[in-house]
Amino acid sequence: MASGESGPHAPPSPTVHTLERQFEDFRHQLDDSGSLRERIRSVALEIESVTRIMQSSLLLIHQSRPIPEVLEKAKGQIIVLKELYSKLAEIIREFPGQYYRFHGDWRSETQTVVSLLAFIHWLETESLLLHSEAEEKLGLNPSEFGLDIEEYLIGICFMSNDLPRYVVNQVTAGDYDCPRKVLKFLTDLHAAFRMLNLRNDFLRKKFDGMKYDLRKVEEVYYDVKIRGLATNENARGEQGDEQ
Amino acid sequence: MASGESGPHAPPSPTVHTLERQFEDFRHQLDDSGSLRERIRSVALEIESVTRIMQSSLLLIHQSRPIPEVLEKAKGQIIVLKELYSKLAEIIREFPGQYYRFHGDWRSETQTVVSLLAFIHWLETESLLLHSEAEEKLGLNPSEFGLDIEEYLIGICFMSNDLPRYVVNQVTAGDYDCPRKVLKFLTDLHAAFRMLNLRNDFLRKKFDGMKYDLRKVEEVYYDVKIRGLATNENARGEQGDEQ
Amino acid sequence: MASGESGPHAPPSPTVHTLERQFEDFRHQLDDSGSLRERIRSVALEIESVTRIMQSSLLLIHQSRPIPEVLEKAKGQIIVLKELYSKLAEIIREFPGQYYRFHGDWRSETQTVVSLLAFIHWLETESLLLHSEAEEKLGLNPSEFGLDIEEYLIGICFMSNDLPRYVVNQVTAGDYDCPRKVLKFLTDLHAAFRMLNLRNDFLRKKFDGMKYDLRKVEEVYYDVKIRGLATNENARGEQGDEQ
Amino acid sequence: MASGESGPHAPPSPTVHTLERQFEDFRHQLDDSGSLRERIRSVALEIESVTRIMQSSLLLIHQSRPIPEVLEKAKGQIIVLKELYSKLAEIIREFPGQYYRFHGDWRSETQTVVSLLAFIHWLETESLLLHSEAEEKLGLNPSEFGLDIEEYLIGICFMSNDLPRYVVNQVTAGDYDCPRKVLKFLTDLHAAFRMLNLRNDFLRKKFDGMKYDLRKVEEVYYDVKIRGLATNENARGEQGDEQ
Repeated sequence: MASGESGPHAPPSPTVHTLERQFEDFRHQLDDSGSLRERIRSVALEIESVTRIMQSSLLLIHQSRPIPEVLEKAKGQIIVLKELYSKLAEIIREFPGQYYRFHGDWRSETQTVVSLLAFIHWLETESLLLHSEAEEKLGLNPSEFGLDIEEYLIGICFMSNDLPRYVVNQVTAGDYDCPRKVLKFLTDLHAAFRMLNLRNDFLRKKFDGMKYDLRKVEEVYYDVKIRGLATNENARGEQGDEQ
Repeated sequence: MASGESGPHAPPSPTVHTLERQFEDFRHQLDDSGSLRERIRSVALEIESVTRIMQSSLLLIHQSRPIPEVLEKAKGQIIVLKELYSKLAEIIREFPGQYYRFHGDWRSETQTVVSLLAFIHWLETESLLLHSEAEEKLGLNPSEFGLDIEEYLIGICFMSNDLPRYVVNQVTAGDYDCPRKVLKFLTDLHAAFRMLNLRNDFLRKKFDGMKYDLRKVEEVYYDVKIRGLATNENARGEQGDEQ
Repeated sequence: MASGESGPHAPPSPTVHTLERQFEDFRHQLDDSGSLRERIRSVALEIESVTRIMQSSLLLIHQSRPIPEVLEKAKGQIIVLKELYSKLAEIIREFPGQYYRFHGDWRSETQTVVSLLAFIHWLETESLLLHSEAEEKLGLNPSEFGLDIEEYLIGICFMSNDLPRYVVNQVTAGDYDCPRKVLKFLTDLHAAFRMLNLRNDFLRKKFDGMKYDLRKVEEVYYDVKIRGLATNENARGEQGDEQ
Repeated sequence: MASGESGPHAPPSPTVHTLERQFEDFRHQLDDSGSLRERIRSVALEIESVTRIMQSSLLLIHQSRPIPEVLEKAKGQIIVLKELYSKLAEIIREFPGQYYRFHGDWRSETQTVVSLLAFIHWLETESLLLHSEAEEKLGLNPSEFGLDIEEYLIGICFMSNDLPRYVVNQVTAGDYDCPRKVLKFLTDLHAAFRMLNLRNDFLRKKFDGMKYDLRKVEEVYYDVKIRGLATNENARGEQGDEQ
């Protein structure tokens, strides 16, 4: 071997060639997953922008605008969400078995989507939007691109956080039966959550927050009851139902 | 409607039954994934305990014990690792397409495993343990339970962090050719990593640290060169290359 | 080459002279911008001290002192602010195109100024102090030394943070129409902010806080409504509107 | 006024219309400056990618490759940098007087550019790249888009950080005169920086680090001197120059 080759910077040995080939492969793979991530992020940003529009519409509910009118605008966006989730599913379909590899990239947007759909559903039916109903509304096919249970549950907690404000503003506007209805819903929901053995994580923390929503709504219900506003309103509320 | 039913604590309505059924399902699913997680964690803990045994054995390398003797003990554990990864693969096989859902639970242990295997491999061959070689040593089948590229690369960075100390102790023990060999290896490795477009994350941070390893080894090589100690060793190194 | 010149501490070569001349220039420039900065900071400190006087005066509003009396004292300082901003503009005029180079040095003081002017304006008119009105009050000439939009918006958020406390104290003092008026103002303001695509920065964080102000005011409005206190006040409020 | 208008959610008053118009204006302005920022960031990313290429080329200097060969590759990128800075200047030309508003968006990239140009310049001339020379190489017109003095100075500090490693590797490769030359340069540079009254900021911190570079190079110079390598090497070095 010539003396020039004895230093640490001798020309690459055969091993190095393999090493270079391996890193060349890695570069392609990392670039591919990088550009995949960009495609996913771009759809996730579109989802976020749709949820902002829906939130703006739904804010009017706190100003006592008629529910159907408010909901119509927000519900008009569900079809757009459906298309965006279909895009996401299409992207992930190219990478079988890697849903959970990238799932952090649309997680928080999906939690917001669930909270909005569940709020709309509650305003319409006074019942909880079920997990399967949420998947159906978003056109998700659970066998290939479903709604992760934890994201669903976190979204439901987010919806719960909005209910005290809704109750306060409804009472202000003269709807004294609202606290009773929301309290019934939240009580059932809280009891259902308590059945779950939650790990010590983000979901558990969000669920722990739900008891403050419950307490706040209880206090409003107490306020209307103690003032004798609830009873009359019950009658009124029922008449309202019959209309 | 009976008065008892108008309060928020009325007996559950049909809707609630569905809600309860859904949460009953969730409870089973969360319990299942919780116990799955425990099974995974228990294997991961065993892997961690094996890597601690290997680390203890390899520490003797810094005390200039003969390499073959030191390696024999450490290499004896590879078969145990192989069994543990086979257990992990078996568990994950029950949950197709969810490798990345749980992969955080064995991530850091696997990075350590890679760093140890790569260090052993370098001591034996003075070349980089390739990704495919690492998978082979651990008996991994890439199509169902492979070695994530990022974990492999982080493990290689960890190995690089051990090299300056090794070089220092080898020179102390009179092996003046070691700096040249390690420097050649690290220079090639560093150049190969630079080909990758790393995102601004943990891997990038680890790679940024590699340049300090490189600099430290350069300084040791400088020390032996300036004292004229390297010359004879170069000859020995060349003989080694010719074998 | 003489031996004396071969050491690292040989007399300076011609190159060094140029190097020294360059650093001599830098020293002058850095000293100049340093003393400029001191001049700016000294004016900014005067502005801060004026805002402290105004804040002290405005605090009396929470003790139900008559609004005109409270405002008179605070408004007396606006002429001082005007002079100080004129000083700032004069200093910056010497450094054309460098407004944004130094603008961090009076930023937070200006945010406070905006929040105070906007609160005074609201107390007088129940409407938002517009950006152009703020510039006019401060005697700013937008073409040479304007009010940065982001500072204006942050100042408005700061003012919003003061409103819940004001509402609480007004109700305590028997002004039951105040919550309705503030709620109307905050609802419109919040909706207007939502039109903006805020980047993920300080302004966005401040705006996110505004929804807590809104919620708090809604709760006070709820309290007066549920106690039947708001009704008469509504009439008073309308009379006020008709003036 | 009709009773429906007395609530906080009455239809918008004329004031609100102006408020909405103002926020509409703001939205346009914030969107404009947002998209401007994206254009700037995209050029800055291209600059960063060019500096990475240059760094990769210059790394070979530590492996004792012939300087002219190494520099040729790196210098080939300067023309690309020139084009990119011309693009930046063109963008900023649309926003007179706002250089410093956006200047944070290309700051760190420019510091790296200066450090690379100054290192190349030193390898070629053993003298400091002056501020005016850096502007010239980058085709900057100081009257409209110059090189901020602080960025220049920070870039020079970054270059200084690379010198100890260069000296170590040069001595390893047998160039025993390198420490003397680098020490002379760093001593002069350090003395020149000491003339400046630096504020207590990033630049001052970077400059404080320069004394460690100086100390390290002094130690290498001491090593070669005490072993009698410097004197002989000086002679040898000169012969080398004559080749």
